Amino acid sequence: MTTSSDQIEIYDTTLRDGGQALGVNLSLADKLELSRQLDWLGVSYIEGGWPGSNPKDAGYFEEVPKLELERAKVFAFGSTRHQRNAPANDPNLIQLVQSRADGCCIFGKTWDLHVTDALRVSLQDNLEMIGSSVEFLKERTGKPVFYDAEHFFDGFLANPDYALSTLAAAAKAGADRLILCDTNGGALPEQVQRAIAAAQSVAPGVPLGIHVHNDGGLAVANTLAAVQAGCTQVQGTMNGVGERCGNVDLTSVIANLELKFGKRCLPEGHLARLTELSRIVWERLNLTAPLNQPYVGKSAFAHKGGIHVSAMQRNQRTYEHVVPESVGNTRRILISEMSGRSNLVAKLANRYPNLRDEAVLSGILNEVQDRENQGYSYEGADGSFDLLVRRHLGEWSAAFELLYYRVHGIGTAGEDAHTVEATVKLNVAGETRLCAAEGNGPVDALSHALWQALTPAFPTLSKLHLVDYKVRVVNSSDGTAAKVRVLVEYTHGTHSFTTLGVSENIIEASWQALVDAVEYAIQRGREKRA
Amino acid sequence: MTTSSDQIEIYDTTLRDGGQALGVNLSLADKLELSRQLDWLGVSYIEGGWPGSNPKDAGYFEEVPKLELERAKVFAFGSTRHQRNAPANDPNLIQLVQSRADGCCIFGKTWDLHVTDALRVSLQDNLEMIGSSVEFLKERTGKPVFYDAEHFFDGFLANPDYALSTLAAAAKAGADRLILCDTNGGALPEQVQRAIAAAQSVAPGVPLGIHVHNDGGLAVANTLAAVQAGCTQVQGTMNGVGERCGNVDLTSVIANLELKFGKRCLPEGHLARLTELSRIVWERLNLTAPLNQPYVGKSAFAHKGGIHVSAMQRNQRTYEHVVPESVGNTRRILISEMSGRSNLVAKLANRYPNLRDEAVLSGILNEVQDRENQGYSYEGADGSFDLLVRRHLGEWSAAFELLYYRVHGIGTAGEDAHTVEATVKLNVAGETRLCAAEGNGPVDALSHALWQALTPAFPTLSKLHLVDYKVRVVNSSDGTAAKVRVLVEYTHGTHSFTTLGVSENIIEASWQALVDAVEYAIQRGREKRA
Repeated sequence: MTTSSDQIEIYDTTLRDGGQALGVNLSLADKLELSRQLDWLGVSYIEGGWPGSNPKDAGYFEEVPKLELERAKVFAFGSTRHQRNAPANDPNLIQLVQSRADGCCIFGKTWDLHVTDALRVSLQDNLEMIGSSVEFLKERTGKPVFYDAEHFFDGFLANPDYALSTLAAAAKAGADRLILCDTNGGALPEQVQRAIAAAQSVAPGVPLGIHVHNDGGLAVANTLAAVQAGCTQVQGTMNGVGERCGNVDLTSVIANLELKFGKRCLPEGHLARLTELSRIVWERLNLTAPLNQPYVGKSAFAHKGGIHVSAMQRNQRTYEHVVPESVGNTRRILISEMSGRSNLVAKLANRYPNLRDEAVLSGILNEVQDRENQGYSYEGADGSFDLLVRRHLGEWSAAFELLYYRVHGIGTAGEDAHTVEATVKLNVAGETRLCAAEGNGPVDALSHALWQALTPAFPTLSKLHLVDYKVRVVNSSDGTAAKVRVLVEYTHGTHSFTTLGVSENIIEASWQALVDAVEYAIQRGREKRA
Repeated sequence: MTTSSDQIEIYDTTLRDGGQALGVNLSLADKLELSRQLDWLGVSYIEGGWPGSNPKDAGYFEEVPKLELERAKVFAFGSTRHQRNAPANDPNLIQLVQSRADGCCIFGKTWDLHVTDALRVSLQDNLEMIGSSVEFLKERTGKPVFYDAEHFFDGFLANPDYALSTLAAAAKAGADRLILCDTNGGALPEQVQRAIAAAQSVAPGVPLGIHVHNDGGLAVANTLAAVQAGCTQVQGTMNGVGERCGNVDLTSVIANLELKFGKRCLPEGHLARLTELSRIVWERLNLTAPLNQPYVGKSAFAHKGGIHVSAMQRNQRTYEHVVPESVGNTRRILISEMSGRSNLVAKLANRYPNLRDEAVLSGILNEVQDRENQGYSYEGADGSFDLLVRRHLGEWSAAFELLYYRVHGIGTAGEDAHTVEATVKLNVAGETRLCAAEGNGPVDALSHALWQALTPAFPTLSKLHLVDYKVRVVNSSDGTAAKVRVLVEYTHGTHSFTTLGVSENIIEASWQALVDAVEYAIQRGREKRA
């Protein structure tokens, strides 16, 4: 049972603070779609942007009301007034008043060093800037105003009395929450707890929040320590995106608070949406998800060592701290050089529960090992692995026989300089087909020609859609002659799968992956009909 | 000042536990080279492998003495004896005795669930297996024996008396260290501290170690909590590689302990080697380093937001928790859409301290923004960014004029099926050169032809060496016709740099990056001569 004191407000700032991360560049469409998804997960607040900082963020607050979010309140971010402006003449505060947000969150200076060295105003003037800005926003908007105490923990170490007086100024002016920030991300859990105890004494009635960065690798621990010390709001970003080492990762915080501290962060039953939300965010941000991300990563519940896998088959608690399904993740059994027979049997058990044929198992294991020595890696290529198993089981027949493929006209000379032509000749369903197609590059041209040749016989292929295409050098010591591994991910309706190819020639490696993808899709199509 | 009680032993298990990670597959040569590097950093112990588990690890212990490491002791890993063997007949223990390691570390069961459900022996028999195995190794090797209490923290929660009795059995048999493991990675810092206090009471004279995994995102916090509670050995892996969510990242632990807790983990002055060691490990493991890794990541001290950059120029402490040079890292000022003029000036300040020409600055900023809209990304491409700036400053002249390039013969037909031919025609140093070259793939063939055409005029190119080649889809919604971004990294002696290209055609994108790389290298060569 969670009581009201067990309720934690999740304030997501992926769209604002997350946008400071290296390589992150969100369009207005991205921001709106992510708002919809964050609402689906069930966060309490979405910090959508800083309307005073750029036109894209101002546009966001015009558009977001049309989404009619179910639960999340959308907040605008800003700063206290500029030292030279009265609140009513401060462009930043006026933008916040004019925005259609449900509330706002403004940051001010807490650390005396920042007041004197960065802002260059007197300590007293800074207190007045905080108080008058909060007061102005409360009066003019009639909506909640949260106050972000930037650098609170560093400021508290340097000059505790002054740091606390900035909180008192915001509280006195009517701030609805005081958010304690570890802006530089270097605080330690004990420091966090001591400073929070002091903050509670200067603003007893005002709920506290925590906002930390991960520069010391302690963001999750600092956030949990803050909640234990009494903070009831957690600010952070999904997947921990953010500048330098990132903000605290809300996916880890939410899972820990709900599963290990008995707190409630999301509506009942929504915790199982966490893994899907995390992957949607990685995708929208166009960043590669780290496999080892706690709770939601693809390998968070992956088992590779043979001993672990044997024990897991006897009792799942032996090597898992929580049940993967609690956060919407799944268990994976990995196939690799180290795995041995027990992993292979476990991975195949789902599909072929009665497979005990030693010769077949050995054949599969040996082929996996041989191919891994050549640079293949089946850990991330479920589609190609499935085809490999089927070949050993005699359950597979090739959908077509390739005679040749060729690519022509790559270069800068002539018209349509970047248009490439590919030809594919193959035998399919008793006839020989030669198809030619153009494309924007060699892989595009080849895939068009291949689909053109096969779709008449296998109409299911028209529903295949490429999701991702990745290339990596397997052994960079050979320079541009090094082998590359190509992974392609396709979706086929709701099912997605990955296939791979390896070669010194990037076109050949891509071709292998394309062929595996069509073979896999055709095979699945046959089974569905059967 | 650090005293002897401030000394922490670093026990690195990257080569053993790190090898369990998804995608990690270390050759014998990799293991030996990494041992050399870990010794250069200055760790106390290197766990090199499990000689009983595979022939590669057995070979490692034959070869490693030849390295004549300066400081690190090399340890072999293993398990307590099998329930059916006497110690003297247990193949695993015998391998440990025969190995040429400086000591060994064996794991045993602590959690009653594991004893009964995974091992399937009685609780009493397990105690005897632990004691007799440690005693046998101590007697037969005469070397240090460390005891890894697997699942200690889960076991302590489930059955504290039994968990502690396993430690007592190992201590009584002569174990030189008792290592407390959070094998499932789900422990919380308070749990860790309480369990360690209890462990100290059952084995008062024996130094304790801590070995945790990161499934809750708390590995660094749990390790620091354990050191505060009295553990004097820390086990982990470099960069936190390991199965599921990884082991604790020793780079974060070492930096935190030395910079924030006044502990000594490495020889004096060696902390500044940490960033280089981290990058060497990522490279050897053939994994992509996460940019946001605390302390050692490429963006750990990167500043993007305009306000932060302005403040940093006034006082560096404003947005950095430690000095980047303390761990051998460097500050980066990022150029991107959000950056505004202050970032650009800061980034250029090093090289062009007097650049204040508004027209030039605007020109650079506008071109960066235009190109980022097309899919370019200069954040990771210092070489291409440098060329762009030089063009605006009028400080650059093209080293050659391209007439055309063409690629021929990609396909499966004929002999040498995967050999590709490329031709490059260009004007260089007053003459027209047409060069043809073969390669294992189109990019390889093109680079050979390009080098062949240019090296006579620019011999410096013969020293360029490719380090990395990366491809990523910029907008996957267009399928195989999507734009790709190619990044190539070259070294030129000790200096390395990255250039980029963007196109729907992977060959054209690669070509752009190759051309930028040769132009950049030629430009630098000219300056060195001048």
